[in-house]
Amino acid sequence: MKFEVTILGSSSATPIYNRNPTSQALNINERIYLIDCAEGTQQQMLKFDVKASRIDFIFISHLHGDHYLGLVGLLSSLHLNGRIKPLKIFGPKHLKEIIDLQLGYSETELKYKIEFRETNHLIPEVILENQDITVETIPLEHGIACTGFLFKEKKRLRKLIKEKLEQYNIPVEYYTALKKGADYTSPKGEVYKNESLTFDSAVPKTYAYCSDTCYNEKYFEQISNSTVLYHEATFLNNMLERAIETQHTTALQAAEVAVKTNAKKLLIGHFSARYKTLNELIDEARSVFPNTELALEGKTFLIE
Amino acid sequence: MKFEVTILGSSSATPIYNRNPTSQALNINERIYLIDCAEGTQQQMLKFDVKASRIDFIFISHLHGDHYLGLVGLLSSLHLNGRIKPLKIFGPKHLKEIIDLQLGYSETELKYKIEFRETNHLIPEVILENQDITVETIPLEHGIACTGFLFKEKKRLRKLIKEKLEQYNIPVEYYTALKKGADYTSPKGEVYKNESLTFDSAVPKTYAYCSDTCYNEKYFEQISNSTVLYHEATFLNNMLERAIETQHTTALQAAEVAVKTNAKKLLIGHFSARYKTLNELIDEARSVFPNTELALEGKTFLIE
Repeated sequence: MKFEVTILGSSSATPIYNRNPTSQALNINERIYLIDCAEGTQQQMLKFDVKASRIDFIFISHLHGDHYLGLVGLLSSLHLNGRIKPLKIFGPKHLKEIIDLQLGYSETELKYKIEFRETNHLIPEVILENQDITVETIPLEHGIACTGFLFKEKKRLRKLIKEKLEQYNIPVEYYTALKKGADYTSPKGEVYKNESLTFDSAVPKTYAYCSDTCYNEKYFEQISNSTVLYHEATFLNNMLERAIETQHTTALQAAEVAVKTNAKKLLIGHFSARYKTLNELIDEARSVFPNTELALEGKTFLIE
Repeated sequence: MKFEVTILGSSSATPIYNRNPTSQALNINERIYLIDCAEGTQQQMLKFDVKASRIDFIFISHLHGDHYLGLVGLLSSLHLNGRIKPLKIFGPKHLKEIIDLQLGYSETELKYKIEFRETNHLIPEVILENQDITVETIPLEHGIACTGFLFKEKKRLRKLIKEKLEQYNIPVEYYTALKKGADYTSPKGEVYKNESLTFDSAVPKTYAYCSDTCYNEKYFEQISNSTVLYHEATFLNNMLERAIETQHTTALQAAEVAVKTNAKKLLIGHFSARYKTLNELIDEARSVFPNTELALEGKTFLIE
């Protein structure tokens, strides 16, 4: 199953140096889960060939403009391009009010339905579950109501050991039950334990999206063992004071989160406009957590 | 005095083919008068080196998203980049409410003051007058409340004919009065008529911005004799029915507006996403009004 993320924006508050504010397109089994939607996101999607028509879900972390000001434009474009299938949007209280106000004054009646679910920034909640994944909110601390999102692949069924099934002449109609963990009892009453006939499927992969937040151990347990962790890293650690004041994280701290939560890979982003080049940020993070990458516009990372 | 317009967006409803929805930066004497502000306008300004800090006035024609969804992002960026001087915004009723709602929920208190003036889409009004220009609204017909904007250079003082002033020994302290049209009476009582000492300054130049609108003679008199007329030309004339239905103009009609109002030059823009290339649109307009240009992203046109 495809599980990959394409970065559409890596900048914090303002666009600069060809970096756009935050948005990411998560492709799970050819459906797009759009995470945040800064101004210019639809232009970035065109640039990096991410098909807007494949978006089924949009997740907005919080109501700072650099995370959602491209949403109403995107919704309008989907409408103008003929979308009729419903769109699920997850985001903070008031987001729906903002959308409705703007569509209302432009006298736009969307041809498709928006199903809005308000997120709760105080406790983790499963907000979406389908055949491919579950999505949980990650309560973050950023001054205004803010959540990250944890995308967890569904646990797959157990894998059959074909040679054993043939050896014991187990009929095909029992296979589904075996995949689900059942033992097999033959017509003669012989019991074959499931563990001798199947093996466990791979550990489900996870993508944890943490932006924006100050360094805060409260969410560490929830995101532990992420296959890929995206964490904001607005500043270098020599700006720690400013990071604390603005409730952001430094590159060093982001790497510490990856270490402490046992992430396999770390992506950092949400870079301050003060950094024209990003070498120092990646170096700082890698000094603590070597498997770190810059979440730069147009890059696609496999969750594997 | 510098009087030129840089195109930041030429697309209608959606961004496509590297064309961004509508925005234009009018530079008058090194101050920027921003006309419309679609999503991505601040990114376009960075790309084409238009200094956002020089914006003193923003004019929003109407509340369709492709004309204003970049505004709140731009306002936030000006704030974050340290602006303190006030900013005048002219636009339809409800624009201020939209701005306030979004800044409010993001808990942003701008460091500078917004002076908002609501436009009236029913009658032309002078909404701005300073030492360089006057700006009038142009009532347009587009379904929802919509105005264009007419930028008129201030009439300059009369020019002195230096040889005559020397010939008649006219003291320097009378020059200002002469420029304003006064006659000169010498100490001996000889009267010199103003027309013999000065000549009229150039006819003030004008830039008329007409987007979005159906073809409608009501505004023709107001925009007559424009130095440069920008007119939307969403469709080719073979889509006239669709143009009427959506209250837009065809390239042929835009050219007819230029002919009937005696414009010196015509710029066309607001191109439908159905046109990947624009050759047919410019050809159609030029067949009626040869001095037509495509208002394409990054192009600067002198108002002269």
